[in-house]
Amino acid sequence: MTYTLILLRHGESDWNQKNLFTGWVDVDLTDKGRAEAARGGALIKDSGLLPDVVHTSVLRRAITTANLALDACDRHWIPVRRSWRLNERHYGALQGLDKAATREKYGDEQFMLWRRSFDTPPPPIEQGSEFDQTSDPRYAGIDVPLTECLADVIPRMMPYWENEIQADLRDGKTVLVTAHGNSLRALVKHLDGISDEDIAGLNIPTGMPLVYDLGEDFMPTGPSRYLDPEAAAAAAEAVANQGKK
Amino acid sequence: MTYTLILLRHGESDWNQKNLFTGWVDVDLTDKGRAEAARGGALIKDSGLLPDVVHTSVLRRAITTANLALDACDRHWIPVRRSWRLNERHYGALQGLDKAATREKYGDEQFMLWRRSFDTPPPPIEQGSEFDQTSDPRYAGIDVPLTECLADVIPRMMPYWENEIQADLRDGKTVLVTAHGNSLRALVKHLDGISDEDIAGLNIPTGMPLVYDLGEDFMPTGPSRYLDPEAAAAAAEAVANQGKK
Repeated sequence: MTYTLILLRHGESDWNQKNLFTGWVDVDLTDKGRAEAARGGALIKDSGLLPDVVHTSVLRRAITTANLALDACDRHWIPVRRSWRLNERHYGALQGLDKAATREKYGDEQFMLWRRSFDTPPPPIEQGSEFDQTSDPRYAGIDVPLTECLADVIPRMMPYWENEIQADLRDGKTVLVTAHGNSLRALVKHLDGISDEDIAGLNIPTGMPLVYDLGEDFMPTGPSRYLDPEAAAAAAEAVANQGKK
Repeated sequence: MTYTLILLRHGESDWNQKNLFTGWVDVDLTDKGRAEAARGGALIKDSGLLPDVVHTSVLRRAITTANLALDACDRHWIPVRRSWRLNERHYGALQGLDKAATREKYGDEQFMLWRRSFDTPPPPIEQGSEFDQTSDPRYAGIDVPLTECLADVIPRMMPYWENEIQADLRDGKTVLVTAHGNSLRALVKHLDGISDEDIAGLNIPTGMPLVYDLGEDFMPTGPSRYLDPEAAAAAAEAVANQGKK
Protein backbone atom coordinates (compact mmCIF):
# COMPACT_ATOMS: atom_id res chain seq x y z
CA MET A 1 0.00 0.00 0.00
CA THR A 2 1.29 3.44 -0.94
CA TYR A 3 -1.48 5.96 -0.51
CA THR A 4 -4.69 5.94 1.55
CA LEU A 5 -7.83 7.72 0.36
CA ILE A 6 -11.08 7.86 2.35
CA LEU A 7 -14.31 8.95 0.67
CA LEU A 8 -17.28 10.07 2.74
CA ARG A 9 -20.67 11.08 1.39
CA HIS A 10 -22.44 13.69 3.54
CA GLY A 11 -25.12 12.56 5.98
CA GLU A 12 -28.86 13.01 5.44
CA SER A 13 -29.81 16.57 4.52
CA ASP A 14 -33.09 18.45 5.00
CA TRP A 15 -33.90 17.86 1.37
CA ASN A 16 -32.87 14.20 1.39
CA GLN A 17 -35.42 13.87 4.17
CA LYS A 18 -38.04 15.88 2.28
CA ASN A 19 -37.24 13.90 -0.89
CA LEU A 20 -36.44 17.01 -2.97
CA PHE A 21 -33.85 17.34 -5.73
CA THR A 22 -31.01 19.35 -4.17
CA GLY A 23 -27.98 19.72 -6.45
CA TRP A 24 -26.17 22.98 -5.65
CA VAL A 25 -28.85 24.29 -3.26
CA ASP A 26 -27.05 24.75 0.05
CA VAL A 27 -29.29 22.88 2.48
CA ASP A 28 -28.33 21.82 6.00
CA LEU A 29 -27.97 18.36 7.53
CA THR A 30 -30.81 16.86 9.57
CA ASP A 31 -30.11 15.67 13.10
CA LYS A 32 -29.93 12.17 11.62
CA GLY A 33 -27.37 13.48 9.12
CA ARG A 34 -25.29 14.94 11.93
CA ALA A 35 -25.40 11.63 13.78
CA GLU A 36 -24.33 9.82 10.59
CA ALA A 37 -21.39 12.18 10.20
CA ALA A 38 -20.26 11.63 13.78
CA ARG A 39 -20.62 7.87 13.35
CA GLY A 40 -18.54 8.04 10.17
CA GLY A 41 -15.87 9.80 12.20
CA ALA A 42 -16.05 7.15 14.91
CA LEU A 43 -15.58 4.42 12.29
CA ILE A 44 -12.52 6.28 10.98
CA LYS A 45 -11.16 6.55 14.50
CA ASP A 46 -11.68 2.84 15.13
CA SER A 47 -9.96 1.98 11.84
CA GLY A 48 -6.84 3.87 12.81
CA LEU A 49 -6.75 5.41 9.30
CA LEU A 50 -6.58 8.97 10.56
CA PRO A 51 -6.82 11.70 7.90
CA ASP A 52 -3.96 14.20 7.61
CA VAL A 53 -5.94 16.57 5.39
CA VAL A 54 -9.58 16.96 4.36
CA HIS A 55 -11.04 18.09 1.06
CA THR A 56 -14.68 19.17 0.90
CA SER A 57 -17.08 20.77 -1.55
CA VAL A 58 -18.28 24.31 -0.80
CA LEU A 59 -21.72 23.06 0.23
CA ARG A 60 -22.84 23.13 3.85
CA ARG A 61 -23.93 19.50 4.04
CA ALA A 62 -20.46 18.25 3.08
CA ILE A 63 -18.63 20.86 5.16
CA THR A 64 -20.65 20.11 8.31
CA THR A 65 -20.25 16.37 7.72
CA ALA A 66 -16.48 16.84 7.54
CA ASN A 67 -16.45 19.03 10.65
CA LEU A 68 -18.46 16.52 12.69
CA ALA A 69 -16.60 13.46 11.42
CA LEU A 70 -13.21 15.05 12.08
CA ASP A 71 -14.28 16.14 15.54
CA ALA A 72 -15.34 12.55 16.29
CA CYS A 73 -11.94 11.15 15.28
CA ASP A 74 -9.92 13.93 16.98
CA ARG A 75 -8.73 15.29 13.64
CA HIS A 76 -10.58 18.61 13.79
CA TRP A 77 -7.19 20.38 13.63
CA ILE A 78 -5.98 19.07 10.24
CA PRO A 79 -5.66 21.33 7.16
CA VAL A 80 -8.89 21.95 5.25
CA ARG A 81 -9.25 22.47 1.51
CA ARG A 82 -12.47 23.21 -0.32
CA SER A 83 -13.55 23.36 -3.93
CA TRP A 84 -16.73 23.80 -5.92
CA ARG A 85 -15.30 21.02 -8.12
CA LEU A 86 -16.37 18.53 -5.42
CA ASN A 87 -19.96 19.87 -5.39
CA GLU A 88 -22.93 17.66 -6.06
CA ARG A 89 -23.99 17.61 -9.67
CA HIS A 90 -26.18 20.58 -10.55
CA TYR A 91 -29.74 19.33 -10.91
CA GLY A 92 -30.87 22.11 -13.26
CA ALA A 93 -34.56 23.00 -13.28
CA LEU A 94 -35.29 20.03 -11.01
CA GLN A 95 -33.60 21.72 -8.01
CA GLY A 96 -36.24 22.19 -5.30
CA LEU A 97 -38.77 19.79 -6.88
CA ASP A 98 -40.21 16.79 -5.07
CA LYS A 99 -38.72 13.54 -6.33
CA ALA A 100 -41.90 11.46 -6.04
CA ALA A 101 -44.04 14.19 -7.67
CA THR A 102 -41.49 14.54 -10.49
CA ARG A 103 -41.56 10.79 -11.03
CA GLU A 104 -45.36 10.85 -11.16
CA LYS A 105 -45.49 13.84 -13.50
CA TYR A 106 -42.86 12.73 -16.02
CA GLY A 107 -43.05 8.95 -15.61
CA ASP A 108 -40.56 6.34 -14.50
CA GLU A 109 -38.50 6.38 -17.67
CA GLN A 110 -37.83 10.14 -17.80
CA PHE A 111 -37.32 10.24 -14.02
CA MET A 112 -34.68 7.50 -14.08
CA LEU A 113 -33.04 9.08 -17.12
CA TRP A 114 -32.56 12.35 -15.23
CA ARG A 115 -31.45 10.58 -12.07
CA ARG A 116 -29.20 7.90 -13.41
CA SER A 117 -28.40 8.31 -17.09
CA PHE A 118 -24.77 9.07 -17.71
CA ASP A 119 -25.17 11.84 -20.24
CA THR A 120 -28.73 13.26 -20.16
CA PRO A 121 -28.87 16.42 -18.03
CA PRO A 122 -32.15 17.72 -16.60
CA PRO A 123 -33.53 20.91 -18.22
CA PRO A 124 -31.38 23.95 -17.31
CA ILE A 125 -32.36 26.10 -14.35
CA GLU A 126 -33.72 29.54 -15.17
CA GLN A 127 -31.15 32.18 -14.25
CA GLY A 128 -32.39 34.39 -11.43
CA SER A 129 -34.93 31.80 -10.27
CA GLU A 130 -35.13 30.81 -6.60
CA PHE A 131 -32.62 27.97 -6.62
CA ASP A 132 -30.14 29.37 -9.14
CA GLN A 133 -26.59 29.90 -7.80
CA THR A 134 -25.03 32.04 -10.53
CA SER A 135 -24.83 35.15 -8.33
CA ASP A 136 -23.65 33.39 -5.15
CA PRO A 137 -20.38 35.04 -3.97
CA ARG A 138 -18.72 31.67 -3.37
CA TYR A 139 -18.81 31.04 -7.12
CA ALA A 140 -17.33 34.41 -8.13
CA GLY A 141 -15.20 33.90 -11.23
CA ILE A 142 -16.59 30.40 -11.84
CA ASP A 143 -18.73 29.48 -14.80
CA VAL A 144 -21.63 28.14 -12.72
CA PRO A 145 -23.45 25.33 -14.54
CA LEU A 146 -27.18 25.61 -15.23
CA THR A 147 -27.57 21.82 -15.23
CA GLU A 148 -25.30 18.79 -15.19
CA CYS A 149 -25.39 15.10 -15.95
CA LEU A 150 -22.78 12.75 -14.50
CA ALA A 151 -20.78 13.08 -17.72
CA ASP A 152 -20.53 16.83 -16.98
CA VAL A 153 -19.35 16.28 -13.41
CA ILE A 154 -16.36 14.20 -14.46
CA PRO A 155 -14.44 16.88 -16.41
CA ARG A 156 -14.93 19.51 -13.69
CA MET A 157 -14.10 17.11 -10.83
CA MET A 158 -11.11 15.29 -12.34
CA PRO A 159 -8.71 18.28 -12.46
CA TYR A 160 -9.21 18.67 -8.72
CA TRP A 161 -8.46 14.98 -8.18
CA GLU A 162 -5.36 15.14 -10.34
CA ASN A 163 -3.96 18.47 -9.17
CA GLU A 164 -5.06 18.96 -5.57
CA ILE A 165 -5.96 15.63 -3.99
CA GLN A 166 -3.13 13.68 -5.64
CA ALA A 167 -0.69 16.37 -4.45
CA ASP A 168 -1.64 15.64 -0.85
CA LEU A 169 -1.47 11.88 -1.41
CA ARG A 170 1.97 12.29 -2.99
CA ASP A 171 3.07 14.07 0.20
CA GLY A 172 2.24 10.88 2.08
CA LYS A 173 -0.95 12.25 3.62
CA THR A 174 -4.00 10.11 4.34
CA VAL A 175 -6.69 12.11 2.53
CA LEU A 176 -10.37 12.38 3.47
CA VAL A 177 -12.71 13.61 0.73
CA THR A 178 -16.12 14.63 2.05
CA ALA A 179 -18.49 15.25 -0.81
CA HIS A 180 -21.67 14.17 -2.57
CA GLY A 181 -23.37 11.23 -4.24
CA ASN A 182 -22.45 12.26 -7.74
CA SER A 183 -19.04 13.89 -7.30
CA LEU A 184 -17.99 10.73 -5.45
CA ARG A 185 -19.59 8.49 -8.09
CA ALA A 186 -17.50 10.33 -10.69
CA LEU A 187 -14.33 9.61 -8.71
CA VAL A 188 -15.25 5.98 -7.98
CA LYS A 189 -16.06 5.48 -11.67
CA HIS A 190 -12.51 6.54 -12.50
CA LEU A 191 -10.84 4.58 -9.71
CA ASP A 192 -12.76 1.34 -10.28
CA GLY A 193 -12.88 1.66 -14.07
CA ILE A 194 -16.68 1.45 -14.17
CA SER A 195 -18.29 1.80 -17.60
CA ASP A 196 -20.71 4.58 -18.56
CA GLU A 197 -23.51 1.99 -18.46
CA ASP A 198 -22.63 0.27 -15.19
CA ILE A 199 -22.17 3.48 -13.17
CA ALA A 200 -25.98 3.87 -13.21
CA GLY A 201 -26.20 0.96 -10.77
CA LEU A 202 -23.66 2.35 -8.28
CA ASN A 203 -25.12 3.96 -5.16
CA ILE A 204 -22.89 5.43 -2.46
CA PRO A 205 -24.43 5.41 1.01
CA THR A 206 -24.34 8.50 3.27
CA GLY A 207 -21.96 8.72 6.21
CA MET A 208 -20.04 5.50 5.45
CA PRO A 209 -16.29 5.92 5.04
CA LEU A 210 -15.06 4.13 1.87
CA VAL A 211 -11.33 3.36 1.86
CA TYR A 212 -9.05 2.98 -1.16
CA ASP A 213 -5.45 1.80 -1.08
CA LEU A 214 -3.74 3.40 -4.06
CA GLY A 215 -0.48 2.70 -5.83
CA GLU A 216 2.09 5.07 -7.32
CA ASP A 217 -0.23 5.65 -10.28
CA PHE A 218 -3.02 6.76 -7.89
CA MET A 219 -5.11 3.77 -8.94
CA PRO A 220 -6.39 1.07 -6.51
CA THR A 221 -4.07 -1.79 -5.60
CA GLY A 222 -7.06 -3.88 -4.50
CA PRO A 223 -10.81 -3.61 -3.90
CA SER A 224 -12.09 -0.63 -1.92
CA ARG A 225 -13.81 -1.31 1.40
CA TYR A 226 -16.45 0.33 3.55
CA LEU A 227 -15.41 0.62 7.18
CA ASP A 228 -18.83 -0.82 8.08
CA PRO A 229 -19.68 -3.10 5.13
CA GLU A 230 -23.04 -4.41 6.34
CA ALA A 231 -24.49 -1.01 7.15
CA ALA A 232 -23.17 0.33 3.84
CA ALA A 233 -24.93 -2.36 1.81
CA ALA A 234 -28.24 -1.69 3.57
CA ALA A 235 -27.89 2.06 3.09
CA ALA A 236 -27.01 1.79 -0.61
CA GLU A 237 -30.19 -0.22 -1.10
CA ALA A 238 -32.19 2.59 0.52
CA VAL A 239 -30.62 5.19 -1.82
CA ALA A 240 -31.56 3.08 -4.85
CA ASN A 241 -35.17 3.13 -3.68
CA GLN A 242 -35.45 6.95 -3.44
CA GLY A 243 -38.34 8.38 -5.43
CA LYS A 244 -40.31 5.14 -5.19
CA LYS A 245 -43.68 5.51 -3.56
CA MET B 1 -10.51 52.09 5.82
CA THR B 2 -8.16 49.69 4.09
CA TYR B 3 -8.31 46.33 5.82
CA THR B 4 -10.93 44.67 8.06
CA LEU B 5 -9.96 42.27 10.83
CA ILE B 6 -12.47 40.50 13.09
CA LEU B 7 -11.33 38.81 16.29
CA LEU B 8 -13.51 36.21 18.00
CA ARG B 9 -12.73 34.47 21.27
CA HIS B 10 -14.17 30.94 21.48
CA GLY B 11 -17.41 30.39 23.38
CA GLU B 12 -17.63 28.81 26.84
CA SER B 13 -15.77 25.52 27.09
CA ASP B 14 -16.32 22.56 29.39
CA TRP B 15 -13.43 23.74 31.50
CA ASN B 16 -14.50 27.39 31.52
CA GLN B 17 -17.72 26.07 33.00
CA LYS B 18 -15.91 23.82 35.49
CA ASN B 19 -13.55 26.70 36.32
CA LEU B 20 -10.39 24.72 35.49
CA PHE B 21 -7.18 26.04 33.97
CA THR B 22 -7.20 24.83 30.36
CA GLY B 23 -4.29 26.15 28.27
CA TRP B 24 -3.46 23.65 25.53
CA VAL B 25 -5.80 20.91 26.83
CA ASP B 26 -8.22 20.27 23.96
CA VAL B 27 -11.60 20.53 25.66
CA ASP B 28 -14.93 20.93 23.89
CA LEU B 29 -17.46 23.77 23.95
CA THR B 30 -20.49 23.60 26.23
CA ASP B 31 -23.95 24.01 24.73
CA LYS B 32 -23.79 27.60 25.96
CA GLY B 33 -20.46 27.99 24.14
CA ARG B 34 -22.02 26.66 20.94
CA ALA B 35 -24.87 29.13 21.27
CA GLU B 36 -22.37 31.96 21.84
CA ALA B 37 -20.50 30.96 18.69
CA ALA B 38 -23.68 30.94 16.61
CA ARG B 39 -24.70 34.30 18.05
CA GLY B 40 -21.27 35.70 17.19
CA GLY B 41 -21.84 34.53 13.63
CA ALA B 42 -25.29 36.14 13.58
CA LEU B 43 -23.75 39.46 14.73
CA ILE B 44 -21.19 39.18 11.92
CA LYS B 45 -23.97 38.50 9.45
CA ASP B 46 -25.97 41.53 10.65
CA SER B 47 -22.89 43.75 10.43
CA GLY B 48 -22.37 42.90 6.77
CA LEU B 49 -18.63 42.43 7.48
CA LEU B 50 -18.47 38.95 5.97
CA PRO B 51 -15.18 37.10 6.38
CA ASP B 52 -13.37 35.94 3.24
CA VAL B 53 -10.98 33.67 5.14
CA VAL B 54 -10.77 32.31 8.69
CA HIS B 55 -7.71 31.62 10.83
CA THR B 56 -8.03 29.41 13.90
CA SER B 57 -5.82 27.78 16.49
CA VAL B 58 -5.55 23.97 16.42
CA LEU B 59 -7.72 23.63 19.52
CA ARG B 60 -11.24 22.24 19.30
CA ARG B 61 -12.95 25.07 21.17
CA ALA B 62 -11.70 27.67 18.66
CA ILE B 63 -12.25 25.42 15.63
CA THR B 64 -15.83 24.58 16.60
CA THR B 65 -16.52 28.22 17.40
CA ALA B 66 -15.32 29.19 13.92
CA ASN B 67 -17.35 26.41 12.31
CA LEU B 68 -20.55 27.44 14.08
CA ALA B 69 -20.04 31.19 13.61
CA LEU B 70 -19.28 30.77 9.90
CA ASP B 71 -22.29 28.52 9.44
CA ALA B 72 -24.47 31.19 11.08
CA CYS B 73 -23.26 33.90 8.69
CA ASP B 74 -23.34 31.68 5.57
CA ARG B 75 -19.56 31.75 5.25
CA HIS B 76 -18.97 28.05 6.03
CA TRP B 77 -17.40 27.69 2.56
CA ILE B 78 -14.50 30.17 2.92
CA PRO B 79 -10.84 29.04 3.08
CA VAL B 80 -9.65 27.83 6.48
CA ARG B 81 -6.16 28.21 7.92
CA ARG B 82 -5.00 26.88 11.26
CA SER B 83 -1.92 27.30 13.40
CA TRP B 84 -0.71 26.28 16.85
CA ARG B 85 0.63 29.86 17.00
CA LEU B 86 -2.92 31.02 17.72
CA ASN B 87 -3.33 28.54 20.61
CA GLU B 88 -4.20 29.66 24.10
CA ARG B 89 -1.18 30.27 26.30
CA HIS B 90 0.14 27.07 27.82
CA TYR B 91 -0.81 27.03 31.47
CA GLY B 92 2.03 24.74 32.56
CA ALA B 93 1.50 22.64 35.68
CA LEU B 94 -1.78 24.49 36.34
CA GLN B 95 -3.51 22.78 33.39
CA GLY B 96 -6.40 20.72 34.74
CA LEU B 97 -6.41 22.39 38.17
CA ASP B 98 -9.45 24.12 39.65
CA LYS B 99 -9.09 27.92 39.58
CA ALA B 100 -10.82 28.57 42.89
CA ALA B 101 -8.91 25.80 44.67
CA THR B 102 -5.65 27.10 43.21
CA ARG B 103 -6.48 30.58 44.43
CA GLU B 104 -7.23 29.22 47.89
CA LYS B 105 -4.08 27.10 48.01
CA TYR B 106 -1.60 29.67 46.76
CA GLY B 107 -3.31 32.90 47.77
CA ASP B 108 -4.68 35.83 45.82
CA GLU B 109 -1.32 37.35 44.99
CA GLN B 110 0.28 34.25 43.47
CA PHE B 111 -2.97 33.35 41.70
CA MET B 112 -3.28 36.75 40.03
CA LEU B 113 0.43 36.70 39.18
CA TRP B 114 -0.03 33.42 37.26
CA ARG B 115 -3.24 34.60 35.64
CA ARG B 116 -2.43 38.15 34.74
CA SER B 117 1.23 39.01 35.17
CA PHE B 118 2.93 39.74 31.88
CA ASP B 119 6.09 37.75 32.39
CA THR B 120 5.67 35.23 35.22
CA PRO B 121 4.83 31.79 33.82
CA PRO B 122 3.22 29.10 35.98
CA PRO B 123 5.46 26.15 36.93
CA PRO B 124 6.23 23.94 33.90
CA ILE B 125 4.07 20.89 33.24
CA GLU B 126 5.67 17.53 33.85
CA GLN B 127 6.37 15.83 30.53
CA GLY B 128 4.31 12.67 30.15
CA SER B 129 1.76 13.81 32.72
CA GLU B 130 -1.97 13.69 31.96
CA PHE B 131 -2.37 17.13 30.41
CA ASP B 132 1.00 17.39 28.64
CA GLN B 133 0.79 17.83 24.84
CA THR B 134 4.39 17.15 23.79
CA SER B 135 3.53 13.85 22.07
CA ASP B 136 0.31 15.04 20.38
CA PRO B 137 0.60 14.39 16.61
CA ARG B 138 -0.74 17.85 15.78
CA TYR B 139 2.43 19.34 17.25
CA ALA B 140 4.87 17.10 15.40
CA GLY B 141 7.99 19.10 14.62
CA ILE B 142 7.00 21.93 16.98
CA ASP B 143 8.86 22.75 20.17
CA VAL B 144 5.81 22.41 22.44
CA PRO B 145 6.05 24.76 25.43
CA LEU B 146 5.90 23.38 28.97
CA THR B 147 4.48 26.65 30.30
CA GLU B 148 3.90 30.17 29.02
CA CYS B 149 3.28 33.67 30.31
CA LEU B 150 1.76 36.31 28.04
CA ALA B 151 5.27 37.55 27.24
CA ASP B 152 5.97 34.06 25.81
CA VAL B 153 2.82 34.05 23.67
CA ILE B 154 3.75 37.25 21.84
CA PRO B 155 6.91 36.02 20.05
CA ARG B 156 5.26 32.77 18.91
CA MET B 157 2.02 34.48 17.82
CA MET B 158 3.44 37.57 16.09
CA PRO B 159 5.17 35.77 13.18
CA TYR B 160 1.78 34.27 12.28
CA TRP B 161 0.17 37.72 12.38
CA GLU B 162 2.92 39.21 10.23
CA ASN B 163 3.35 36.40 7.72
CA GLU B 164 0.00 34.66 7.39
CA ILE B 165 -2.80 36.94 8.55
CA GLN B 166 -1.35 40.10 7.03
CA ALA B 167 -0.90 38.24 3.72
CA ASP B 168 -4.65 37.63 3.57
CA LEU B 169 -5.42 41.23 4.57
CA ARG B 170 -3.04 42.47 1.88
CA ASP B 171 -5.06 40.43 -0.64
CA GLY B 172 -8.08 42.54 0.32
CA LYS B 173 -9.73 39.78 2.33
CA THR B 174 -11.85 40.43 5.42
CA VAL B 175 -10.14 38.16 7.93
CA LEU B 176 -11.75 36.37 10.89
CA VAL B 177 -9.38 35.15 13.61
CA THR B 178 -11.01 32.70 16.00
CA ALA B 179 -8.76 32.04 18.94
CA HIS B 180 -8.29 32.36 22.70
CA GLY B 181 -8.21 34.84 25.54
CA ASN B 182 -4.45 35.15 25.63
CA SER B 183 -3.47 34.75 21.97
CA LEU B 184 -6.02 37.49 21.21
CA ARG B 185 -4.77 39.63 24.11
CA ALA B 186 -1.28 39.37 22.62
CA LEU B 187 -2.59 40.61 19.27
CA VAL B 188 -4.74 43.37 20.80
CA LYS B 189 -1.75 44.48 22.90
CA HIS B 190 0.21 44.99 19.69
CA LEU B 191 -2.62 46.63 17.74
CA ASP B 192 -3.68 49.01 20.51
CA GLY B 193 -0.17 49.68 21.80
CA ILE B 194 -1.04 48.54 25.32
CA SER B 195 1.80 48.53 27.85
CA ASP B 196 3.08 45.43 29.65
CA GLU B 197 1.41 46.75 32.82
CA ASP B 198 -1.95 47.77 31.37
CA ILE B 199 -2.53 44.52 29.45
CA ALA B 200 -3.26 42.85 32.82
CA GLY B 201 -6.55 44.76 32.94
CA LEU B 202 -7.71 43.76 29.46
CA ASN B 203 -10.32 40.99 29.31
CA ILE B 204 -11.73 39.77 26.02
CA PRO B 205 -15.25 38.34 26.27
CA THR B 206 -16.20 35.03 24.64
CA GLY B 207 -18.24 34.90 21.45
CA MET B 208 -18.23 38.68 20.81
CA PRO B 209 -16.82 39.72 17.42
CA LEU B 210 -14.28 42.57 17.82
CA VAL B 211 -13.67 44.57 14.65
CA TYR B 212 -10.53 46.50 13.68
CA ASP B 213 -10.18 48.81 10.69
CA LEU B 214 -6.52 48.73 9.71
CA GLY B 215 -4.40 50.97 7.53
CA GLU B 216 -1.61 50.13 5.08
CA ASP B 217 0.73 49.55 8.04
CA PHE B 218 -1.70 46.96 9.47
CA MET B 219 -2.30 49.18 12.50
CA PRO B 220 -5.72 50.54 13.54
CA THR B 221 -7.00 53.68 11.88
CA GLY B 222 -9.43 54.23 14.76
CA PRO B 223 -10.75 52.51 17.89
CA SER B 224 -11.81 48.88 17.63
CA ARG B 225 -15.45 48.02 18.24
CA TYR B 226 -17.45 45.07 19.51
CA LEU B 227 -20.40 44.24 17.30
CA ASP B 228 -22.52 44.11 20.46
CA PRO B 229 -20.85 46.63 22.82
CA GLU B 230 -23.19 46.30 25.80
CA ALA B 231 -23.06 42.54 25.95
CA ALA B 232 -19.29 42.65 25.49
CA ALA B 233 -18.80 44.96 28.48
CA ALA B 234 -20.93 42.74 30.73
CA ALA B 235 -19.10 39.61 29.57
CA ALA B 236 -15.63 41.13 30.08
CA GLU B 237 -16.63 41.94 33.65
CA ALA B 238 -17.59 38.30 34.19
CA VAL B 239 -14.20 37.12 32.85
CA ALA B 240 -12.41 39.45 35.26
CA ASN B 241 -14.30 37.84 38.15
CA GLN B 242 -13.25 34.26 37.31
CA GLY B 243 -11.67 32.43 40.23
CA LYS B 244 -13.48 34.60 42.77
CA LYS B 245 -15.66 32.67 45.17
